[in-house]
Amino acid sequence: MALTPQYADLDRLAIEVPSWAYGNSGTRFRVFGTPGTPRDPFEKVSDAAQVHAHTGLAPRVALHYPWDAVDDWEALRAHAQDLGVALGTINSNTFQDEDYKFGSLTHPDPRIRRKAVDHHLECIEIMHRTGSRDLKVWLADGTNYPGQDSIRARQDRLAESLHAIYEHLGEEQRMVLEYKFFEPAFYHTDIPDWGTSYAHCAALGERAMVVLDTGHHAPGTNIEFIVAQLLRLGKLGAFDFNSRFYADDDLIVGAADPYQLYRIVAELIAGGGYGSPDVQLVLDQCHNIEAKIPGQIKSVLNVQEAVAKALSIDTEALDAARRDCDVLLANEIFEDAFRTDVRPLLAEYRSQRGLPEDPMRAFLASGYLDRIAEERVGGTQASWGA
Amino acid sequence: MALTPQYADLDRLAIEVPSWAYGNSGTRFRVFGTPGTPRDPFEKVSDAAQVHAHTGLAPRVALHYPWDAVDDWEALRAHAQDLGVALGTINSNTFQDEDYKFGSLTHPDPRIRRKAVDHHLECIEIMHRTGSRDLKVWLADGTNYPGQDSIRARQDRLAESLHAIYEHLGEEQRMVLEYKFFEPAFYHTDIPDWGTSYAHCAALGERAMVVLDTGHHAPGTNIEFIVAQLLRLGKLGAFDFNSRFYADDDLIVGAADPYQLYRIVAELIAGGGYGSPDVQLVLDQCHNIEAKIPGQIKSVLNVQEAVAKALSIDTEALDAARRDCDVLLANEIFEDAFRTDVRPLLAEYRSQRGLPEDPMRAFLASGYLDRIAEERVGGTQASWGA
Amino acid sequence: MALTPQYADLDRLAIEVPSWAYGNSGTRFRVFGTPGTPRDPFEKVSDAAQVHAHTGLAPRVALHYPWDAVDDWEALRAHAQDLGVALGTINSNTFQDEDYKFGSLTHPDPRIRRKAVDHHLECIEIMHRTGSRDLKVWLADGTNYPGQDSIRARQDRLAESLHAIYEHLGEEQRMVLEYKFFEPAFYHTDIPDWGTSYAHCAALGERAMVVLDTGHHAPGTNIEFIVAQLLRLGKLGAFDFNSRFYADDDLIVGAADPYQLYRIVAELIAGGGYGSPDVQLVLDQCHNIEAKIPGQIKSVLNVQEAVAKALSIDTEALDAARRDCDVLLANEIFEDAFRTDVRPLLAEYRSQRGLPEDPMRAFLASGYLDRIAEERVGGTQASWGA
Amino acid sequence: MALTPQYADLDRLAIEVPSWAYGNSGTRFRVFGTPGTPRDPFEKVSDAAQVHAHTGLAPRVALHYPWDAVDDWEALRAHAQDLGVALGTINSNTFQDEDYKFGSLTHPDPRIRRKAVDHHLECIEIMHRTGSRDLKVWLADGTNYPGQDSIRARQDRLAESLHAIYEHLGEEQRMVLEYKFFEPAFYHTDIPDWGTSYAHCAALGERAMVVLDTGHHAPGTNIEFIVAQLLRLGKLGAFDFNSRFYADDDLIVGAADPYQLYRIVAELIAGGGYGSPDVQLVLDQCHNIEAKIPGQIKSVLNVQEAVAKALSIDTEALDAARRDCDVLLANEIFEDAFRTDVRPLLAEYRSQRGLPEDPMRAFLASGYLDRIAEERVGGTQASWGA
Repeated sequence: MALTPQYADLDRLAIEVPSWAYGNSGTRFRVFGTPGTPRDPFEKVSDAAQVHAHTGLAPRVALHYPWDAVDDWEALRAHAQDLGVALGTINSNTFQDEDYKFGSLTHPDPRIRRKAVDHHLECIEIMHRTGSRDLKVWLADGTNYPGQDSIRARQDRLAESLHAIYEHLGEEQRMVLEYKFFEPAFYHTDIPDWGTSYAHCAALGERAMVVLDTGHHAPGTNIEFIVAQLLRLGKLGAFDFNSRFYADDDLIVGAADPYQLYRIVAELIAGGGYGSPDVQLVLDQCHNIEAKIPGQIKSVLNVQEAVAKALSIDTEALDAARRDCDVLLANEIFEDAFRTDVRPLLAEYRSQRGLPEDPMRAFLASGYLDRIAEERVGGTQASWGA
Repeated sequence: MALTPQYADLDRLAIEVPSWAYGNSGTRFRVFGTPGTPRDPFEKVSDAAQVHAHTGLAPRVALHYPWDAVDDWEALRAHAQDLGVALGTINSNTFQDEDYKFGSLTHPDPRIRRKAVDHHLECIEIMHRTGSRDLKVWLADGTNYPGQDSIRARQDRLAESLHAIYEHLGEEQRMVLEYKFFEPAFYHTDIPDWGTSYAHCAALGERAMVVLDTGHHAPGTNIEFIVAQLLRLGKLGAFDFNSRFYADDDLIVGAADPYQLYRIVAELIAGGGYGSPDVQLVLDQCHNIEAKIPGQIKSVLNVQEAVAKALSIDTEALDAARRDCDVLLANEIFEDAFRTDVRPLLAEYRSQRGLPEDPMRAFLASGYLDRIAEERVGGTQASWGA
Repeated sequence: MALTPQYADLDRLAIEVPSWAYGNSGTRFRVFGTPGTPRDPFEKVSDAAQVHAHTGLAPRVALHYPWDAVDDWEALRAHAQDLGVALGTINSNTFQDEDYKFGSLTHPDPRIRRKAVDHHLECIEIMHRTGSRDLKVWLADGTNYPGQDSIRARQDRLAESLHAIYEHLGEEQRMVLEYKFFEPAFYHTDIPDWGTSYAHCAALGERAMVVLDTGHHAPGTNIEFIVAQLLRLGKLGAFDFNSRFYADDDLIVGAADPYQLYRIVAELIAGGGYGSPDVQLVLDQCHNIEAKIPGQIKSVLNVQEAVAKALSIDTEALDAARRDCDVLLANEIFEDAFRTDVRPLLAEYRSQRGLPEDPMRAFLASGYLDRIAEERVGGTQASWGA
Repeated sequence: MALTPQYADLDRLAIEVPSWAYGNSGTRFRVFGTPGTPRDPFEKVSDAAQVHAHTGLAPRVALHYPWDAVDDWEALRAHAQDLGVALGTINSNTFQDEDYKFGSLTHPDPRIRRKAVDHHLECIEIMHRTGSRDLKVWLADGTNYPGQDSIRARQDRLAESLHAIYEHLGEEQRMVLEYKFFEPAFYHTDIPDWGTSYAHCAALGERAMVVLDTGHHAPGTNIEFIVAQLLRLGKLGAFDFNSRFYADDDLIVGAADPYQLYRIVAELIAGGGYGSPDVQLVLDQCHNIEAKIPGQIKSVLNVQEAVAKALSIDTEALDAARRDCDVLLANEIFEDAFRTDVRPLLAEYRSQRGLPEDPMRAFLASGYLDRIAEERVGGTQASWGA
């Protein structure tokens, strides 16, 4: 029988939410707008703070630079603090400037590599102002056609560029290096898999860690295996939550395959990654057609539900079944916690913590969405690129 | 030994090129620009005509409406004729209006379905003016989340909407119905596979035909099988050429897997689809980072090369090996034609037809690219959406 | 809130279990044995009857011919009846005879096609004796190398062979035609997708129906869409339950993705396929490393759980949310029933129906496994091929 | 224009052929037999020697133990030498004993892990007798169901077991560690990707190297990228040639995608892996339905053709185009060598080296196949397991 998780264990869940999830996003075919969409980073942080206010799960907001560029970083930091949240990871961006058409940190031209490195140094400066620990590096670098550039030379340039950035990190800062199977590059991607990210991080040093994103894998990839492996190697720096049926769909975490989310979370817990400062949990999603703040609330609740289930696994009974090679029993014990409906438990837990039992209903009833739809008139709605 | 194809057989190759390939395109991450990119449909047609002028392979230009909306269709038609090409298929567009956020021909709201049907009727009107035979219907319709809408109800609405369009087709006009595995919808797509397109076309009538696009399939799908099957069922209306390594990458046809292109073309020939008026051959690609007109020239040349090879198959020897179940011999005969370098033959063929032996070099030497880069200053470069 | 399903609706669930699941199975690398494995069809039926005795869900046993060949079919039928079950679908087998190395119903050699057709006529004869309604045709036919045989010619031969079989069906009999993406053929499969099976069934007539197997699709295929489409077209004849992470893994149904199973069952219910005599529900799995009878018990219970959840969907609320295009609400209503733990309800339901509340524990406690391990000594354990 | 490769560069190609390719193989559905199939390792080596005799490309034969167990290893070695070939890599086998049902080097039970380690020590002993340098470790270890065993604990056991083997290697011996995406395990595989193999090899030491097999990847994986990466990291120990359309189809190398083979070989050459003693080139294929010795001859010829093409790349022009970011030109230069028909050149090269210009025709004309079909009567044909 599934166990009942301790409230103290549930308390250890903290998820960083991305500023860009509150702006508009879409596909190459269309970006649809929504009334009330933020026009600037301050409004994005305000929206993000709503998620934390109603769920207690999202104490930090990740920023994307230069999308979230502001004149006064201290003001943004104070704005966040006033709303009960902190600024988190800084995401660099080397894919929206004409210079990066053929690469950034891996570009054949040293001038453009230098520019891309400098952009990261600027991010590090910002991190000092925002109090952020992590610099997240995700590259769009790659090629579209066989032969277009040397795969090997680009690896060597990548290593050199990363080194130039890494050595500027402050003592308390980290670089977290993301990988992605494909898109926007369609023949080869310069950091396509965890092995590549790991090899670079291992060469860089202790403060370089791998970022794992749910949607950045080949079809059928066993993601919880990678979680287990990177925890074992001491190199899991962050986990980006979202979900997908096909490619990097960036759907709400848990929406496509809640059992996969549960398995991932179970592996995070089993390997010591849950509640560890080393492993930053982050949402990285797009709300192309659904309401954005509610989409984010649902997302953190989905993670919380998976955590509550995974904390309920009867690990003692499971270990015994595994020792006996009792396949069906071990599987049943593992499934049992997933099958259990933890929603009543979580409602009670929230209530005890002074949070609304049903955060989604509480938010929808708060009138916030109507308010921003009315107030945020004029200006340009934020989206990828601003 | 591979045979030598007849020039008369090579003459039967005609490929429609898409107006939108000459505008800018990209991914959700970035659309990069290029000097000289057309600002309007007239300039797109001018560029397209360059492809035909140098290769003799691209006598028609497909249009996308309303991207290619002009005040005077007759003028556009005349402009094309002056440049030696004709206007071809009209592609409808029901994915770039806020109303279509949750669907078009399948939308739950009858008002929006009506609007989407009316858009197609408008396309049919335009076809009368442009002299186009085919109305190509590709829908972005689908859902992102399980439960979001009824899969079944949407099929029924789709059938009804398609019927409303179909009955307005002129006697000489056709509807060609495209399918796509995923994107931009990420949970379910309303026409995800050839079976669905086929079932609808069969219900509509003789002038409804299936469109097959190289990149619109699940990983590993045997596309030449679908070609063979649709030809057998008399329902292959068009084939959209491009190539991909992952999803709908829309790379230059033949760039990812030239052997697959050869197999597809071989099946087109074997099943009577090559040179048949029933089967429209079309490019449908994006030149995100490479030069656009040269990208198109390379594309039609790649198809021509595949055709020349497939026409070289020693079908008599192949049939004998197949009858004997001689796996290796049959495979070798089939591969032999692919392995043969037909480029010298094609150079000679072109020369005999009054075309440059090396169309790419001829075009690059023509100065056209420099000229448009100089002349096309100001205005807004065309891209998806304009 | 999820509704409570009616017991009468739960009563309509009946799943056919496959005789071959009780024999040994494995991969090309190894078939492992288990003490107590049946040596003949009578023992297989005995094991299958245990599943029904403890769950009330598996009233029929599908047979595979000639794997399950017996001298006296009436005796096998009576044996089944004595144990409270009936004989079900007859599965033909044209992949384990040296003659079928290069195909069966599609073979280039008419003699071998004739042999394969005759095998099916023999199956029809057996169906009369066993009282089976359905002849299930799954073909291993295909090719491993491009060019090996004509894809098109094989389709034509297939159509002819199927016709020759179909016309021998009795009035009350049906042919159900399975498709499979790949394996054992590795270049092309003669019936690779639902479209191909559908086209052939439509050409054959009303008593030819498509079989959908969970594991027989390209990666990422939306299976519930196909369920909805085939129900709409009136051509879903059977659904083969199993699950997979990669290819045709044939794992226990629901083990890989319980949410997918739920979505499939929800679509069966929504489209009128649940409880319909037209749609035969079948297990088709391999218990390579886990205990077989318990594996089957778990499987039918997993389906029952998915059915109970899907019957709990608040369809009225769902329809309203869909009409409003409220993506998150519709998705939440759909997920709500999945999230609900229906195990207590099902325990009560079973108790009321005179069945053990926990069928798995009841079976394991019954001593049956020890008994067969002791009794079934000597002889050859059944596996694929016997 | 493609360059002409030097004969001396072509001379550096040497491919190890696998003893088991000459025995029968198949799928879980059926293993078909062929007249003349070897009954013992001596006959397998005789067949393998035919490949080298006609092509000059296959000087070594890889063995699988205990499939190829003989009483007198020196006799087998002498038999090989008499026929002009040498014995090569020893492949261990820990997947065909009942004890390994739930794992070998990763099994929860230390007794079974010990047994699996001891098997490898026995292989090392044999290597001393056969003069083999490489111990190839491919594991079937993994689980079929979530929760079945601890992914993490299995990694730790794996590390320990590998270490116990590694420390017994002779000074001149190496361990090459293969990875595989899935099959025969269907939920998780203990060494599923290059990253995992690399992490273990890096921990073991200099004489542990990664094995890359064409068919052991997720769909869409860019294999040449992994070649480039492992060469860069100094850890590519061997490359197993075969091809596939879907999973681990084990078709003839180059049969599914000759352009992929070319890209792989080009990356081997570019990264210094071609002709290097560090990188063992091996065939690892199954000839399920085609003739085996001819299948092997075709395979080594396909690799030779790819090598000849890749050696023809105009690297100087390519580098210049890459520096200029001229996507289309770089791609065209890269494709040019692939498009060139090198068969005449290779015929001449063979002739100059005293080999038949057309090795396949020469072998088929030699009468060898008829002779073995006549002579090898009685006994048990070798297949996986013997």
